[in-house]
Amino acid sequence: MSEAVAEALVARKDEILERLKALLRLPSVSTDPAYAEGMKATREFLLARLKEAGLTDVRLLDGGGQPAVTGAWMGAPGKPTLIVYGHYDVQPPDPLNLWTSPPFEPTIRDGRLYARGASDVKGSTLIAVETVAAFIAAGGCPVNIRFFLEGEEEIGSPSLLTLIERNRDALVADAVLSADGGRASTTLPTVNVGSRGLTKLEVTLRTASKDMHSGRYGGAVRNANHELAKLIAGLHDEAGRINVPGFFDDLAPIGLRERADAAALAMKAAEFYGDIGAVPYGDPALGLRERITLMPTIEVNGMWGGYTGAGSKTVLPCEAHAKFTMRLGPGQDPARVQKVLRDHLLAKAPAGVTLEFLDQDAGSPAFTLREGHPLLVAAERVIETTTGRAPVRARIGGTLPITAIFQETLGLDTLMFGYAMPDEDVHAPNEFFRLSSLEEGLRGWPLLLTELGKVTPEALRGR
Amino acid sequence: MSEAVAEALVARKDEILERLKALLRLPSVSTDPAYAEGMKATREFLLARLKEAGLTDVRLLDGGGQPAVTGAWMGAPGKPTLIVYGHYDVQPPDPLNLWTSPPFEPTIRDGRLYARGASDVKGSTLIAVETVAAFIAAGGCPVNIRFFLEGEEEIGSPSLLTLIERNRDALVADAVLSADGGRASTTLPTVNVGSRGLTKLEVTLRTASKDMHSGRYGGAVRNANHELAKLIAGLHDEAGRINVPGFFDDLAPIGLRERADAAALAMKAAEFYGDIGAVPYGDPALGLRERITLMPTIEVNGMWGGYTGAGSKTVLPCEAHAKFTMRLGPGQDPARVQKVLRDHLLAKAPAGVTLEFLDQDAGSPAFTLREGHPLLVAAERVIETTTGRAPVRARIGGTLPITAIFQETLGLDTLMFGYAMPDEDVHAPNEFFRLSSLEEGLRGWPLLLTELGKVTPEALRGR
Repeated sequence: MSEAVAEALVARKDEILERLKALLRLPSVSTDPAYAEGMKATREFLLARLKEAGLTDVRLLDGGGQPAVTGAWMGAPGKPTLIVYGHYDVQPPDPLNLWTSPPFEPTIRDGRLYARGASDVKGSTLIAVETVAAFIAAGGCPVNIRFFLEGEEEIGSPSLLTLIERNRDALVADAVLSADGGRASTTLPTVNVGSRGLTKLEVTLRTASKDMHSGRYGGAVRNANHELAKLIAGLHDEAGRINVPGFFDDLAPIGLRERADAAALAMKAAEFYGDIGAVPYGDPALGLRERITLMPTIEVNGMWGGYTGAGSKTVLPCEAHAKFTMRLGPGQDPARVQKVLRDHLLAKAPAGVTLEFLDQDAGSPAFTLREGHPLLVAAERVIETTTGRAPVRARIGGTLPITAIFQETLGLDTLMFGYAMPDEDVHAPNEFFRLSSLEEGLRGWPLLLTELGKVTPEALRGR
Repeated sequence: MSEAVAEALVARKDEILERLKALLRLPSVSTDPAYAEGMKATREFLLARLKEAGLTDVRLLDGGGQPAVTGAWMGAPGKPTLIVYGHYDVQPPDPLNLWTSPPFEPTIRDGRLYARGASDVKGSTLIAVETVAAFIAAGGCPVNIRFFLEGEEEIGSPSLLTLIERNRDALVADAVLSADGGRASTTLPTVNVGSRGLTKLEVTLRTASKDMHSGRYGGAVRNANHELAKLIAGLHDEAGRINVPGFFDDLAPIGLRERADAAALAMKAAEFYGDIGAVPYGDPALGLRERITLMPTIEVNGMWGGYTGAGSKTVLPCEAHAKFTMRLGPGQDPARVQKVLRDHLLAKAPAGVTLEFLDQDAGSPAFTLREGHPLLVAAERVIETTTGRAPVRARIGGTLPITAIFQETLGLDTLMFGYAMPDEDVHAPNEFFRLSSLEEGLRGWPLLLTELGKVTPEALRGR
């Protein structure tokens, strides 16, 4: 049946392309209240499509911010229930003058569909919706489906947790399929198997009870900027390796398969660094992709102290601040790593230097689809079938908040199964989605749902 | 004649106190436009007093900001001409609720006159004005006088240079006597013999051409905050000594007399540090006063990079900034020291890290009244005569802009000869001036002018 549904979808691909263009014409920029109408129109578009496709319980889920769109098809009793995640909001289109064709007038050039949101992530989201619609039209879906189409992904999902907590009844499921989180290569088929975790720490350092005049006190009092700089400077060695005792204690060693996968996806350093105007850096014992996907990091995302306005002020500052985030590798416990950094900074602070830490949540661990996980097995089978090649396993360096949030709140594993490619200028002018990816997705998603229909709910939930 | 003038002044001290109270009732806060009326009334008060006292060319000098008040007495041909510097503006009185009596209602308690500006510097300024008035009333002054009463000292004298350039004719003189710059001790008589210099440097550090996402790039790109922190951390050793090759090359060695003076004025570390809630710090080979008056410093007055707003942002910043100022010890050339720091930072920046320096003026060297300078000889004689004790020579750690500006623009040396004491809460609530200092000043200033009347103009100008 999967085959037939896929063929039916591909046969209707022009119609689906028109539907995607209609969806892309709706300017759903979540960060800017000026686009409130576009957000509303997009929700209405999706609600109408889900209803028309025969889903039930089609409605908005409210979490206090931009609502999510949901709709269910529960016609496969005993089969797994999958949350299908996507998001309908897009990045702002600015700078407008750099677009070749207007961002909300979808335009095809050279087999590419140019529009804001085409790649991130309306294209892949619509593939999922149309796949479910086609199964229902053909008599039923191999699995139960609960759509969860978010409207705040591009602004950091501020109300996602509340939204999930308030609507747990609409989110009872066995696993999550995400239309967001695409391919890692334009040339090799890949499957996403993990992402780095994230934990953070914010510190205020003090050396005195008030700011001082550098003429009266300079030479006899610790400057908070200097002290903070010393602490930050000590966190890495010359090559950029983290220099904090205990930091790596719970990091899983990089295995042979991971090495091979990273090698298969080896990044071209010249391109990687050329794009950002930087020079190579980081642990020389590791490849570039290993460094940015498997290894943890400590970054000072922000630091400030003293006078930062125009001109000059001879203040000897008593206070300085730093915001740290740490990307976590597989195995690392966010709370432990956060504590390791805190303890290290406290141990390094000399007498007379006090540190105050902001209360912060522990963060999210790295996510890994373990070997043999039914989501991974299904994904690899689908990709091999549709592309004719066994996919390379790819990890991403970032942290997908939804992966962590679905795990923490609902205990569900997520498979990222989007069709976006890494060069499609998401968040930039001239974003595009390949028409070939649309067709590939319309073949892949039916197969994926069919493969998962062969799995028990328990197997999907077992970790 | 000095004796007679001093006695006449002291006999009239109640009248002078009333005049000072009238001056203190005028709220001349230069930083706040709401006090424009108070500034104007203060200028009119001073213009009227100078005219009434018999000075000529009494008028306002304009430099584009708050005008200065001037007036001359040139009745001693062949004698030196002295600019008498003071300022009529005051600091804002906030926080008002911490004042025991209102800041602009001068109130005497326990031999102290409480009011904003009493110590800084209307008290000492009026002593100088009344001294000149008394000499003129008694038949003439031992030296020629040009008053220069500034209205922008408390906001950093933004138009002082322009004001001097535009009014050079009113400022032809042989030396400067400043009513600002008071005593260094409440228990020992002191004479001010110098101040540290100042030079600055502002740098922007870059590691890439754009800000990056820490998930995509973290672990493989230099973070501008880390690189700036490393440069800053390397500027001092653990004890706080400057660790920049060549920095001390032109610093004059600390002499025996300077050591003895600093020792005589030794500061109580417990008080010094207790007041600011800090712990002792700085070159252990030097005393506290030596560290903050004779030794140069490098301070990062401000540093910033990346995201400094609320919450967290996983940016890997490509740019970070620092504002440096350096206090200079005797002998140091500001332009050379600025260049030494710049070259050091450039030498320490690793490949891929670029530094851009803001164009800045070279700054001001430390100021020292050399041994045997007629201003110093006169000041020491006056203080010994009026207090019965040889004064200790005191240097200040700060940089008096007027000292440097009068030197640079007019080639004139400055004697700081104010009567403020270091505990009089200038710039804070409950500022006060000792009534005993008023009387001491009314004895000291006549003697000072008399002593300087014995010196040739050439001797004052010779360095």
